[in-house]
Formats: sequence, C-alpha cells, structure tokens
Amino acid sequence: MDHATTRLAVSTVIFALRQEHGGAPTLWTPFVLRTRQPHLDQWALPGGWLSADEDLDSAAARTLGETTGLHPSYLEQLYTFGGVDRSPTGRVVSVAYTALVRTDEVDRAAPGENVRWFRADALPRLAFDHNAIVDYALARLRTKVEYAHIAHTFLGETFTLAQLRSVHEAVLGHALDAANFRRSMTTSSDLVETGEVLAGTPHRPPKLFRYRTAESTRS
Amino acid sequence: MDHATTRLAVSTVIFALRQEHGGAPTLWTPFVLRTRQPHLDQWALPGGWLSADEDLDSAAARTLGETTGLHPSYLEQLYTFGGVDRSPTGRVVSVAYTALVRTDEVDRAAPGENVRWFRADALPRLAFDHNAIVDYALARLRTKVEYAHIAHTFLGETFTLAQLRSVHEAVLGHALDAANFRRSMTTSSDLVETGEVLAGTPHRPPKLFRYRTAESTRS
Repeated sequence: MDHATTRLAVSTVIFALRQEHGGAPTLWTPFVLRTRQPHLDQWALPGGWLSADEDLDSAAARTLGETTGLHPSYLEQLYTFGGVDRSPTGRVVSVAYTALVRTDEVDRAAPGENVRWFRADALPRLAFDHNAIVDYALARLRTKVEYAHIAHTFLGETFTLAQLRSVHEAVLGHALDAANFRRSMTTSSDLVETGEVLAGTPHRPPKLFRYRTAESTRS
Repeated sequence: MDHATTRLAVSTVIFALRQEHGGAPTLWTPFVLRTRQPHLDQWALPGGWLSADEDLDSAAARTLGETTGLHPSYLEQLYTFGGVDRSPTGRVVSVAYTALVRTDEVDRAAPGENVRWFRADALPRLAFDHNAIVDYALARLRTKVEYAHIAHTFLGETFTLAQLRSVHEAVLGHALDAANFRRSMTTSSDLVETGEVLAGTPHRPPKLFRYRTAESTRS
C-alpha cells in the first residue's frame, strides 16, 4: 500500500497537420526538451504533475498550455500508462491525452522554449515510454478517422473533398484513390454540401462541404 | 505538488449474461458490499489499491480475483476517473477496467462474501461515482458490440445465430428483428459456419457458427 511513492502525471500527444513546400500535408506532433534528470536533453511529451485541486482534464489542458501555448478544443483522454519501471526515479503513473489542433491554432500559439515539432512518422528516441504512448495515440487516431469526424477538427467548419482526403491520407500515412474517396464520402449521409465553393479559385472552384449537425438532420 | 495525498485505485466493471426462468438472457454485473467507511453498507465496484510493485492490468486482475473469484480472459482498461471530490476521505484517482465473463465462468467462481450480482439496467445507488463508471462502461460496450467480437467472449468458440442475437439484444437492451439480424450477420465476412449443428436438438437443429480467425482466412 505504498500510495505515497506513486506519483500521478498527465501527458498529451498533440497532432496537427503541416504542409511543407507546397507538398501534401503530413501529421506533426510537438515535444519538449527535458532540462533536468532523468532523461536530461531528451524529447518528451508535453505534460506535468497532477495538482491536488484539479481534475485530470484540467491538468492536461493546463500543462499543455504552459509548455506549448496551445489550448486545443479537442482534448480527449487516451489511456493510462502504469508500468512499474516507466521512470528511473520512482513509480509514475501517467494519464495520457490526445489533442488535435488546426494549423492556424498552431501558428497563433506562443510555445515555450525547448518545444519542437516532429513529423509523426519520423520521431526521435523519446524520454521514458513516450514513444510507446505516441504509437498508441497514432494507432487510435487511425481507427478514429474512419468513423468519427476527426478530420473536421483539423480543417474547421467547411472543407473541400480534396482537403478532407488530404487529412485522411496524412493520418493513415498513405495515399487514397481520389475517385473512390469521393464516392465513399458523398454517399455518406454525414456529409452535406454547403452550397458554397472555395474562395480564390476562379476556374471550376471546388465545392465546400460540412458535417451534418443535429440541426440540419431535422430540416 | 501534493502527490502524496493522491491515492491510486483500480476498479472493474464485470459484465456477464444470465438467463432467468428460461427467459431471454440479460446483462448482469457484480458489486461488493462495503464493510467500512466511507460509504459503509453501500455497493461498490470490485477493486482495490494499486500496489507499488504491480502494473495496472495486474492490479485489476488481482483485486477482481480477490473479491469475486473471477479470472476473466477479457480484461481491458476503460477510462481513468479523477474528479477532485470523488471520495470524501482524500483524493483518489481510479483506473477503471471492463471485464467480460462467460456464464460458466461465473458458475465456477468462488466469490467472496458480500458479493451480489445486479441486472445492469436495475442498479442500486452505488458508492462514490461508481454509477457513473458503470454507465460509461455500458455505453462503451454498446458501441463495441457492433464492431467487435464481444459476443464471442460471452458465448465461447461456437454459437448459433439465435444465441448471437440474444447477446446483442442483452447488451443493447432491446429486441432486434430476427430476419434482419440473420441477413446482416451471414453476409458479414467475419462469421463462418462450422459445419456442425447444436447438439440435443433433433428436429431441424440450428447451425453453429464461429468467428473467422487469421488461420481460417488463409485457407
């Protein structure tokens, strides 16, 4: 019953899309350089200790804001990691969260020092078991993109089918057939045309879509 | 940083099917009567404190065995509950698990004293926030039964379509159309006929099915 020797932390895996040099967008995630032992000078997930007077969601949001300057609207508990030997300096149980942020939120954020974004498919060797946590978050995200409106969180309210496909491709890590994707999405009852088109594209501008809400289902 | 004042517990929501008086099977879950304060004489989820030398899965399996005598093959982490005021005697963060057990496992188990099974749709007022934890587990199970092989865990290796439907009905809490269910299941590529029929049913015995394994997919 050595409760006192087990400490509780929260850690968050943040995903955002980034487009480099006009290429296809890819999935990126930020880490914080550790400035103390253990794992001095290694990259680690943004996070920190749970305070006595805050619940888990609040602790995740707070530590995320303190380190990366991000305040994502999508923040969800992922899994709790409690292996006995996770930390070399005593038992630490970490409640891991996943956050999704839009590119414009990333651009507006004022990250702390020692924060750097990495491509999700080219991670460095991270501190503690954080590589395993990111792998788990990525696997979960890949199953989610197929049945939930994750893409929406990356793109905002309205988007073209090409933009939506680029989100699916970035998360899944491979290209999708454009025609099949279009057919599958437009026959989905969850997606509706807004009646508008993408601005700034004079020649055959692509249609804008959005996800059906409870409101629009009724009408 | 009051780590020492936050204690870590594990709790498990166990689901099993029970058939009463020859009726349709329904979903049941066991609770343990509390013999000390806080919440003396209230029903609570099986569980206990995390020991310093065991990981979370082991703690869930151990505390489950100690209280209910059950050693389920399906034991999965559900969610971590960390509300500040969950316990009246100091901060407790609980890592909740879900277990599914077959009826014959329940019959073979030697439960501790003070264990009683309740119908999942007729729960008593439980200790702490345990009603909320069971509600969450039930909601998760209902989404799972539609895309995973949960039914299998309740039924064992082979089963008739009627048995499979009864599992879906018990979990979902409402009746399903038999013809639609049969059509939907037999067109699913995950279900295969074993070539055998249910024993002890001489007149038009129902076929036995099983889930496709990696092995049978290859052949």
